[in-house]
Amino acid sequence: MSHDSQCIFCQIIAGQAPATVLYEDDIAIVILDLFPIRAGHTLIIPRHHAPLLEQQSSEVAAHLYRLAQKVIRAHKQAGLPLDAHNLVLNDGKAANQHVPHVHLHVIPRRRGDTLAMILRWWTRMLPLKSQRKRRAELDAIAEKLRPALQKL
Amino acid sequence: MSHDSQCIFCQIIAGQAPATVLYEDDIAIVILDLFPIRAGHTLIIPRHHAPLLEQQSSEVAAHLYRLAQKVIRAHKQAGLPLDAHNLVLNDGKAANQHVPHVHLHVIPRRRGDTLAMILRWWTRMLPLKSQRKRRAELDAIAEKLRPALQKL
Repeated sequence: MSHDSQCIFCQIIAGQAPATVLYEDDIAIVILDLFPIRAGHTLIIPRHHAPLLEQQSSEVAAHLYRLAQKVIRAHKQAGLPLDAHNLVLNDGKAANQHVPHVHLHVIPRRRGDTLAMILRWWTRMLPLKSQRKRRAELDAIAEKLRPALQKL
Repeated sequence: MSHDSQCIFCQIIAGQAPATVLYEDDIAIVILDLFPIRAGHTLIIPRHHAPLLEQQSSEVAAHLYRLAQKVIRAHKQAGLPLDAHNLVLNDGKAANQHVPHVHLHVIPRRRGDTLAMILRWWTRMLPLKSQRKRRAELDAIAEKLRPALQKL
């Protein structure tokens, strides 16, 4: 299993950087995005460090979508306000991948929010909120999601 | 395996509607999108009719990402002009899902094309080209992709 000590996701996986963890197993870790487009915006991250999906094993790739199903169900069971989801994997820098370690976005959507979502994607890393406030909000959502994910 | 005779993807799977097919197996079919955002825009579609990912078995969900890896490799081996990919599954109407049968978009990306891609997503179903011209273009791309996909 490859590890890159400069990679923020590898640091989170190693417990060396903070994150709001929802679930973990031998293959992947599931966390809340620190810059959510919407409440509950979740990342599914393989433990193995590699930038691109084709650099992961087929078993790891397959597992990402098994976990995506669980995350979708957990979002719904926990009562997050949503009507649908986008599952997005940006595979390479030219596709808006900001952290060069494979990660699958699971993003709750509401009816009629397309333009708002695009604007949020573009502005989501602006420091509109303090890190502490962000973390407190994520922790509150995680408390609802973790029990649902454990059961699935 | 569920089938909906009103569903365009079920019709394609049953051979009752035209499509440019790249690959098929017991679980899924891989075709070129008739309204591509960029040349090579590919759809991976499970045979089982169900609108949402959570309504597919975990084995089917997993297989979609195994196939996505193959499609990405095939795009690159076939020399399509691309620097990266977006993998997008719109899971529900509020998330811009237009056909209510699960399908995973594999979309080639070039550096600096984000705004152009958004505009193309919004306008991609406008009748800018005849159906016949679209099909001829897809068939030409498919000829390059099929051999790569068969080998993977």
